[in-house]
Amino acid sequence: MKKNQFNSEDHLYLQVADGLEKMIAGEVLRIGDKLPSVRVLSEEYGISMGTAFQAYYHLEGRGLIESRPKSGYYVRFNHQRFPQLPDQVKPDALSHDVSVKEMIASIYADIAAKDVINFALGVPDPSLLPAAKINKSVVYALRNSKDHCIGYEHTQGNLELRQQVAKLSFNWGGKIKPEEVIITSGCLEAVMMCLKAVTNHGDTVAVECPTYFGIYQSIENLGLKVVEIQADPVDGLDLDALQKAIKKFPIKACVAVPNFNNPLGTCMSDENKKKLVEIITKNNIPLIEDDTYGELHFGKNRPKACKVYDTKGLVMYCASLSKSLAPGYRIGWALPGKFFEQVKQIKRIQNISSPSLTQAAMAHYLKNGRYEYHLKNLRKALHTQSLRYMQALIEYFPADTKISRPTGGFTFWIELNKKVDSFKLRTEAMKHKISIVPGKIFSASIDYSNYIRLSFGKPWSDDADYGLMMLGKIIKKLT
Amino acid sequence: MKKNQFNSEDHLYLQVADGLEKMIAGEVLRIGDKLPSVRVLSEEYGISMGTAFQAYYHLEGRGLIESRPKSGYYVRFNHQRFPQLPDQVKPDALSHDVSVKEMIASIYADIAAKDVINFALGVPDPSLLPAAKINKSVVYALRNSKDHCIGYEHTQGNLELRQQVAKLSFNWGGKIKPEEVIITSGCLEAVMMCLKAVTNHGDTVAVECPTYFGIYQSIENLGLKVVEIQADPVDGLDLDALQKAIKKFPIKACVAVPNFNNPLGTCMSDENKKKLVEIITKNNIPLIEDDTYGELHFGKNRPKACKVYDTKGLVMYCASLSKSLAPGYRIGWALPGKFFEQVKQIKRIQNISSPSLTQAAMAHYLKNGRYEYHLKNLRKALHTQSLRYMQALIEYFPADTKISRPTGGFTFWIELNKKVDSFKLRTEAMKHKISIVPGKIFSASIDYSNYIRLSFGKPWSDDADYGLMMLGKIIKKLT
Repeated sequence: MKKNQFNSEDHLYLQVADGLEKMIAGEVLRIGDKLPSVRVLSEEYGISMGTAFQAYYHLEGRGLIESRPKSGYYVRFNHQRFPQLPDQVKPDALSHDVSVKEMIASIYADIAAKDVINFALGVPDPSLLPAAKINKSVVYALRNSKDHCIGYEHTQGNLELRQQVAKLSFNWGGKIKPEEVIITSGCLEAVMMCLKAVTNHGDTVAVECPTYFGIYQSIENLGLKVVEIQADPVDGLDLDALQKAIKKFPIKACVAVPNFNNPLGTCMSDENKKKLVEIITKNNIPLIEDDTYGELHFGKNRPKACKVYDTKGLVMYCASLSKSLAPGYRIGWALPGKFFEQVKQIKRIQNISSPSLTQAAMAHYLKNGRYEYHLKNLRKALHTQSLRYMQALIEYFPADTKISRPTGGFTFWIELNKKVDSFKLRTEAMKHKISIVPGKIFSASIDYSNYIRLSFGKPWSDDADYGLMMLGKIIKKLT
Repeated sequence: MKKNQFNSEDHLYLQVADGLEKMIAGEVLRIGDKLPSVRVLSEEYGISMGTAFQAYYHLEGRGLIESRPKSGYYVRFNHQRFPQLPDQVKPDALSHDVSVKEMIASIYADIAAKDVINFALGVPDPSLLPAAKINKSVVYALRNSKDHCIGYEHTQGNLELRQQVAKLSFNWGGKIKPEEVIITSGCLEAVMMCLKAVTNHGDTVAVECPTYFGIYQSIENLGLKVVEIQADPVDGLDLDALQKAIKKFPIKACVAVPNFNNPLGTCMSDENKKKLVEIITKNNIPLIEDDTYGELHFGKNRPKACKVYDTKGLVMYCASLSKSLAPGYRIGWALPGKFFEQVKQIKRIQNISSPSLTQAAMAHYLKNGRYEYHLKNLRKALHTQSLRYMQALIEYFPADTKISRPTGGFTFWIELNKKVDSFKLRTEAMKHKISIVPGKIFSASIDYSNYIRLSFGKPWSDDADYGLMMLGKIIKKLT
């Protein structure tokens, strides 16, 4: 399609758009590819800048391409090739003892192995994180803190860090005060302490499913029973299912990951978040909201938290810096609402306080390290990686593969042919030093045997390309 | 007593010694005072150096003075004035639910208060710790670690740190390999994870009494019942009482602090440690050994650990750097013996791993920071402080006060007149901004209402002097 190839009947911009769509369908332009700038498009096609803009607007409106701030337009979707979404599976309506221990232990053991192409680890790659700036903040903290951070920090945590956490809450619509915050060693510790604060041994809790296996382990560790509430790959937690479960079981707490649920990567709508809080409030059930992925949105705006709609102090908000800034610093926090004192006491009992130095360093970084600027880059990188990985998945994996469409975070939830046992897949893949996480450990009751979670936290590379190609081959062999 | 004042019947050295003893009894020389050097003594008394030595040997043998390496002789004991030891109280022979929550919360709240003369906090003062050297190790760790410590550390902990922990075990007679070590966030976390690994909700555990209240809280937190085994102010854990308890109750684990038990400051003999391990081995009961104070000995040699006598992997050794190097770094460890995998899994579930940076920094410090040299200074300082504080206690507290004689650590266990309610004492003292810990929270069943724990972790100062004088006055008012 070149200059002067247009007929005169259709709008010019539609003809340009149509041509581009065909190039996408024919994979001349592939998912993740950058499109020419508006100026280049107008020159090349002999059309006005306005018409070029209109063509891109049209394609964007149809979801085929997307604009990225200060970067341009990219191919986002290919009607011909885009895989289906994974099926939503209903858990059986029983409460369960959890037992996924051994499976998870074996996976963590492999994660530690060297020279592995790691699609299993649930963090962005360190190369995406601002090490130099963080180092500066550590040195600042050493020099300027009381006792050089040698003494105990208060159980509740470093005051300046809590002030920064309170400031971060504006991003998700919160109006939090530093005195409502308790610093923990990562989000998982926050979730566990919140759970512990509102349950007794033998109680039943409702948990979104599929969900991060660490949450199941916390539940098992506390001697609790679990009722699983299915989450939809597009809408997230199924609120009708939750209401039914509340009627059927004596549910003492509910755990949900409304923003970019790991592994699904979905984000609940504000409307559903509000409804969720109404449901738990009506039934007087504490909601433990895990928002550790909330900052990693691909869209323009940071999604809200359920905590925004909390009127009774029942929402226990948990988050961390582990997925967005420094996993190894183990800095998380809880806003436990009306259960503040209970959670603080549990923190004190379990480890007195989190380390002084890492807290002081993160406080300084958040205040002076241009966190928002870093996040913008990180989001852009993860978004681009998601598109590039998706393209490879489409290319290398069998045609019947179903893949989630994350709108944030760094994980795909992938449904394979029913014949594929993902534990066997994992074993085979590890022979080629490729690591993935079998779907089975993301639920206590659903048989996700033919599902996997695949992380795109590492920047695209020849290794990643090779790894996905090999995975595709192994999957094809197993079907 | 001056030159030529000696009669010719007794040995000369005995006459000199006798004179010095009288000066001690008359408080011309007070506990903690430095004695003249041997050379000065010989010159002053017109006796030979050998005779001067003999006099000091004689007094040292009687426990009245003590020599400190590279420093000289100090007054240690005054027969006239030295207080009695606190009474050993037998716990009632029942198993108990623990409930000391609110009391402890109130104490921690006060600890955070400013401008308090703090005899309550259970750590050596930061001024006694090598901040500058630790800072250097942090900077080294930032520069030289993989990913600048931004990534997750393995659940088991930093390998170099585990190597250093293994090396430290030589000091207490251990032959530990790095792969047997799990790094935790302080000793309390280690103890809790070990307890969790070998018990189920509702089980009964035996615990030394009195003991650090954090241990009771861990037990309560895990939903366990406790049987208290009395500890003697001189010999430590009562082994007969333990054996009786084992016969009477289904004890699933035993928790002991054989070296410088907090609050007593006593150290079990090697013989008793060996016997203790024999008892638990015979009954197949895991022993959780809290050795966090072991390095803080006043005597020449570091005491052994029970772990030395462990033949079946039943001793779960726990320790930390919190009392000897850097409380705020939250570095502890467990050597869980045959329960290694269980403890590692619990660590993973609760907080994935401890922070990378603090582990790498401590590993570097232990390797290059002259830890042993620092410990020598710290021990000397704490020993001197113990004597100086003791002197003030004798001077300011009522004559019927009974005081433990710690041989390590930094706490006195003090029995006051039965009329004194130490909670009331605490409240009164806090009005004068003086903080102590009431004895009641060191037991679940014994009424230690008229006991207090008093920390001598802060160097002697006018503040400390004033604080103890005021405490003495308040106690006198309350009796």
